[in-house]
Amino acid sequence: MAIRIFTTGGTFDKEYNELNGELYFKDTHMHELLTLGRSRLPVSITPLMMIDSLEMTAEHRNLIAEECKQCKEDKIVITHGTDTMAETARVLAKKVTGKTVVLTGAMIPIKFGSSDGLFNLGSALAFVQSLPPGVYVAMNGRYFNWDNVRKNRQTGIFEELKPVNAGTE
Amino acid sequence: MAIRIFTTGGTFDKEYNELNGELYFKDTHMHELLTLGRSRLPVSITPLMMIDSLEMTAEHRNLIAEECKQCKEDKIVITHGTDTMAETARVLAKKVTGKTVVLTGAMIPIKFGSSDGLFNLGSALAFVQSLPPGVYVAMNGRYFNWDNVRKNRQTGIFEELKPVNAGTE
Amino acid sequence: MAIRIFTTGGTFDKEYNELNGELYFKDTHMHELLTLGRSRLPVSITPLMMIDSLEMTAEHRNLIAEECKQCKEDKIVITHGTDTMAETARVLAKKVTGKTVVLTGAMIPIKFGSSDGLFNLGSALAFVQSLPPGVYVAMNGRYFNWDNVRKNRQTGIFEELKPVNAGTE
Amino acid sequence: MAIRIFTTGGTFDKEYNELNGELYFKDTHMHELLTLGRSRLPVSITPLMMIDSLEMTAEHRNLIAEECKQCKEDKIVITHGTDTMAETARVLAKKVTGKTVVLTGAMIPIKFGSSDGLFNLGSALAFVQSLPPGVYVAMNGRYFNWDNVRKNRQTGIFEELKPVNAGTE
Repeated sequence: MAIRIFTTGGTFDKEYNELNGELYFKDTHMHELLTLGRSRLPVSITPLMMIDSLEMTAEHRNLIAEECKQCKEDKIVITHGTDTMAETARVLAKKVTGKTVVLTGAMIPIKFGSSDGLFNLGSALAFVQSLPPGVYVAMNGRYFNWDNVRKNRQTGIFEELKPVNAGTE
Repeated sequence: MAIRIFTTGGTFDKEYNELNGELYFKDTHMHELLTLGRSRLPVSITPLMMIDSLEMTAEHRNLIAEECKQCKEDKIVITHGTDTMAETARVLAKKVTGKTVVLTGAMIPIKFGSSDGLFNLGSALAFVQSLPPGVYVAMNGRYFNWDNVRKNRQTGIFEELKPVNAGTE
Repeated sequence: MAIRIFTTGGTFDKEYNELNGELYFKDTHMHELLTLGRSRLPVSITPLMMIDSLEMTAEHRNLIAEECKQCKEDKIVITHGTDTMAETARVLAKKVTGKTVVLTGAMIPIKFGSSDGLFNLGSALAFVQSLPPGVYVAMNGRYFNWDNVRKNRQTGIFEELKPVNAGTE
Repeated sequence: MAIRIFTTGGTFDKEYNELNGELYFKDTHMHELLTLGRSRLPVSITPLMMIDSLEMTAEHRNLIAEECKQCKEDKIVITHGTDTMAETARVLAKKVTGKTVVLTGAMIPIKFGSSDGLFNLGSALAFVQSLPPGVYVAMNGRYFNWDNVRKNRQTGIFEELKPVNAGTE
């Protein structure tokens, strides 16, 4: 059960530039997180872009969708900035079918001591193995269907757009 | 979808005693891990014991099974030492039915910088939400059915007892 | 041998705001660093300001100098942004006499995993106990007299303005 | 001003063996600590042994003393287990003259998140540059003369054997 991991940047992969005091992207930290988690999953990692999700355009999202469609795996995890993660999920849902796609990210960069990134990655990799085909967001220990999720900008917490009857999310 | 978390000790919760240089148990680190992961899952945490899994007896395992049966939640995560995790899974499988039970742990204590505990917890909490009733071990990013898992003592890696046809694990 | 610690902000005390992705100041991390270092030194900690050292004005520097002169201790450590640390050292040297003043800081915020702040603090607290009265910068494991130090903006490393004959720095 | 660093093991360099759950020695972490501290000091690092200081014999101490005498540097930092650090200091004081020797260590291994090792190393490297010839212990942010120091086994804190008049320690 091979899994494809696409990285796109986001808070997840930001680092601190000690020469100018700014946050920036260098390399993805995906490999070190998988090593830290002692992961034995068969994964292929493909960095697609390294950007803030606020800078993500329709073209970027189309590229991600194309990569999801064309890759041979039907289980896909995407690391993504949290601000527009729900928007990208909606685009993917329209274009990618028959595959389980889980988007995740981090509120604090991996390289900073108190990041949620390792927890979220463990969570996303588990959901992608166990959820039926569809597009999901995995944050805060939970998963959300692509059509029922938003990031609450005041609290930084992901939540449903509307109550879920079955209470399964 | 409430989740019950039982903690039993294991490497996961070990700390370093700086007065005598030995590893010991003080408190569970479950709360701080859930905070670190920005978890918004409705969980109840119940510490059952604080022991090395090599010291776990049939009585301990019976106690865990009873607690699993009696708690009102049907989704249960158990943190457990890795050495006998598979053995406890087999005991639980015989006694607990109709619930999804996921055992997980850590190869390195949470308090040490390079622990896999946060990754494993994210993974276990995701599997418990998405797998059908049954008893599972979640380690190395993967999940294993209770009747097809062992810890390889030479490598420290969890593996199947026998090949899985469908390749879903 | 009481020591006064003044904090002024700088990279040292920056944190990551997970709601807007910006770096900001909340509280000084001085207490937790002293606890982490198991320090048993008699220190008084006084936060004077919480600013980037690029925003530090003549007024800020005068305030720091006044505080150094008026405090009862004759051993003073000041945490400070690295960009203008040498400039503040020159102002203090003109106004504060008969006291040992050591400025230090960090290239990476304390809260980020790979900070030099704990090392620098250990170093500054040692120098303030053992150097004769004067104003010094303690960075990169070394100490520099106030009149012979600059931060090299290209490398981020502190260095002498001119070679030191005795080679003691 | 070259500095020699001798490593001897101790809590400082212990690691967690994830296969058997025991603490053990692999390599010294001195290089990574100096990198983390952005140290620009000219140092030579020589691992002499990798043992618990409770296992240190007269022969081990003689070896350390010989190395201190024979190395070309007159500024020496020694990392050492805390339990018998004061005893080794006394042996060195009798055999090594005309050099500044600073022993330091850690209450918690470097590899564990909450170690005092980086703070202590920053402190020891500063003291070795600024104190007159003699043998010292640097722990808890303080320095102690070799003939007036012990580790309090109840508290884990280093303290004077007798009060110091001048109050300079």
